[in-house]
Amino acid sequence: MAGRGPMRAAPSPERATMNGTEKNDKAADFANYFCTYAFLYHQKEMLSDRVRMEAYYNSVFKNAHHFQGKVVLDVGTGSGILAIWAAQAGARRVYAVEYTDMAKHAAKLVAANKMDHIVEVIQGSVEEIDLPEKVDIIISEWMGYFLLRESMLDSVLVARDKWLKPGGAMYPSHARMWLAPIKSGMGEHKMQDYEASMNDWVHFTQNTRHAFGVDMSTLSNSYREEQVKYFLQTSLWQSLYPSQVVGQPALVKEIDCLTVTLDDVKAVSANFQLPVFDGETRVSGFAGWFDVRFQGSPSQAADETVELTTAPSINDTTHWGQQVFLLHPPLHVRDNDVVHGSILMTRSKTNHRLMDVVIKHAIGKGAETASAFHIE
Amino acid sequence: MAGRGPMRAAPSPERATMNGTEKNDKAADFANYFCTYAFLYHQKEMLSDRVRMEAYYNSVFKNAHHFQGKVVLDVGTGSGILAIWAAQAGARRVYAVEYTDMAKHAAKLVAANKMDHIVEVIQGSVEEIDLPEKVDIIISEWMGYFLLRESMLDSVLVARDKWLKPGGAMYPSHARMWLAPIKSGMGEHKMQDYEASMNDWVHFTQNTRHAFGVDMSTLSNSYREEQVKYFLQTSLWQSLYPSQVVGQPALVKEIDCLTVTLDDVKAVSANFQLPVFDGETRVSGFAGWFDVRFQGSPSQAADETVELTTAPSINDTTHWGQQVFLLHPPLHVRDNDVVHGSILMTRSKTNHRLMDVVIKHAIGKGAETASAFHIE
Repeated sequence: MAGRGPMRAAPSPERATMNGTEKNDKAADFANYFCTYAFLYHQKEMLSDRVRMEAYYNSVFKNAHHFQGKVVLDVGTGSGILAIWAAQAGARRVYAVEYTDMAKHAAKLVAANKMDHIVEVIQGSVEEIDLPEKVDIIISEWMGYFLLRESMLDSVLVARDKWLKPGGAMYPSHARMWLAPIKSGMGEHKMQDYEASMNDWVHFTQNTRHAFGVDMSTLSNSYREEQVKYFLQTSLWQSLYPSQVVGQPALVKEIDCLTVTLDDVKAVSANFQLPVFDGETRVSGFAGWFDVRFQGSPSQAADETVELTTAPSINDTTHWGQQVFLLHPPLHVRDNDVVHGSILMTRSKTNHRLMDVVIKHAIGKGAETASAFHIE
Repeated sequence: MAGRGPMRAAPSPERATMNGTEKNDKAADFANYFCTYAFLYHQKEMLSDRVRMEAYYNSVFKNAHHFQGKVVLDVGTGSGILAIWAAQAGARRVYAVEYTDMAKHAAKLVAANKMDHIVEVIQGSVEEIDLPEKVDIIISEWMGYFLLRESMLDSVLVARDKWLKPGGAMYPSHARMWLAPIKSGMGEHKMQDYEASMNDWVHFTQNTRHAFGVDMSTLSNSYREEQVKYFLQTSLWQSLYPSQVVGQPALVKEIDCLTVTLDDVKAVSANFQLPVFDGETRVSGFAGWFDVRFQGSPSQAADETVELTTAPSINDTTHWGQQVFLLHPPLHVRDNDVVHGSILMTRSKTNHRLMDVVIKHAIGKGAETASAFHIE
């Protein structure tokens, strides 16, 4: 499946820190995260996402006069596509910053599309590079699964605070995270996989004791924990059908990209009420997705607001899919039931680009359950 | 498939060096390599390899008196299995060194099997830890795909040079690498995948130009290179049937673990002659595998030599499989043809645990072709 940076939650001896200048963290961060973006195949996956491409394309060209004569910064330019569009829309100068060797391809693409007199590709981290001037617009495609996986927004905010002129605009300008109750067969599937794995462990320990004289059963609890985490507590990438959403989605996070702080984005914490639709009887779990909007800036509102949504869809799916948090067992619900509770999403201590999620949920006046997940 | 440490050939900004004490290299090395070994599921995969387990078990217990009263070092103890066997066979003391948090599980396993008065688990890199004494035996399961992938032997040699008493023994004592001509349908399969990917690129560039005004064709050569490397020049893990071997295997490397130096193992360089078996008409490529032997030491030869081979087999397959290097197009051969040439395997510049391979080959007096591969 088209992914956004496969990453392992490496139980590193050193805790991942937010200080990107630590050499060992940068090398591990590269090995864990950045390196996938250096591959053209991966860029092509994202460039083939029609909904994504159309949203960014329209956000620029339906508001072209907001780009004319302006200075633009593209954070994480990848292949250079956003930078090229900004230049084609009339920007005076575009700084296209890219950490990986993909920057070399971006420079070629800019030149081949005759925008090299406007677009300057800079290879480096946006936290560390230097620009000759401040910018009018920051454009970036920074969103990960469920918006915040990858924590790339951090880099965009550093760029904003360092390089955006007062009154400047962020593209996108706003972002929202949504949570909804869903139904899915994947819950049973994962439970079966888990149980098969545990059965296999039993045979394994018996055989290892019998054939090789070593009793592994003392590790059974640790093995179970590992398998529970892997099969039952790891969120799944899914591209859901709209009919799988069985209740009203709730807004769990709103971000104004001009004013949000780093502290604001380090955690998502919200209560929710999810009224179940008529006729639905089962809630297998929750799905999380996001949307972003391109509204321009307060002083220069977009002529036409463009929205990019990753909600479940038939025809307008995106490579982001949704992140699915499955409950074991599923919840049984009746007409007019309301699933209420809270979601708390924080960064993994071992890798700040991955997330820990706790969803507390109850039906009506029923007892509350807390379910823990990891976004890997 | 049961893997041995998934690794990416990360095009890191910093070249990977052999100096393990560089903090940034260690963190990247952990993220790239070590971390998978911290998972019980991964250990279980290796512990479930019957052929592997039987070979090591027999190497110890069929020569138990060579362990009695001795001091043993287990390099990369993982779950602790080899250390426990050494203790059960009568060792006086066993130092079980493990870099990852798996060491915590090893300590529990040692205690649960009542060997904690003999086995001391030490968490750390064998290059850096300190032992109170030198050892009589070093036992280690360090072999990666095609023997040398992962370059874990480096750590075993450091341990040997630092901690093994004169006259001490290495378990295993010897290793050999083999190369053979094979037939396989995978070559056509990979070529089809490659061609589908390139066709898709054509549609992609056309669409991006038409719908979004950006001409990506300047990146076609780079994309092709990337796809050629991925589909056609990356060795495959396969568990081959013996009937797929179509000619006489050649020995391409011999290692005496007591005397081999780090320089010796940094490259494999050998000429080969591979006589094709009667009736075979096609050579799809080459397969590489290895065997190791437990012969004890010159002063204390094993009562019974145990061999662990990863050659193609029906009943005695291992999780190592073989590494397959496919030729495009395959070679057409006739009775009594001899495929001759050379293999050169060196470490990847960006990740010393991965390999670059060049196989030069010709049939009889025919022209020589050089085919390049990567072991990822």
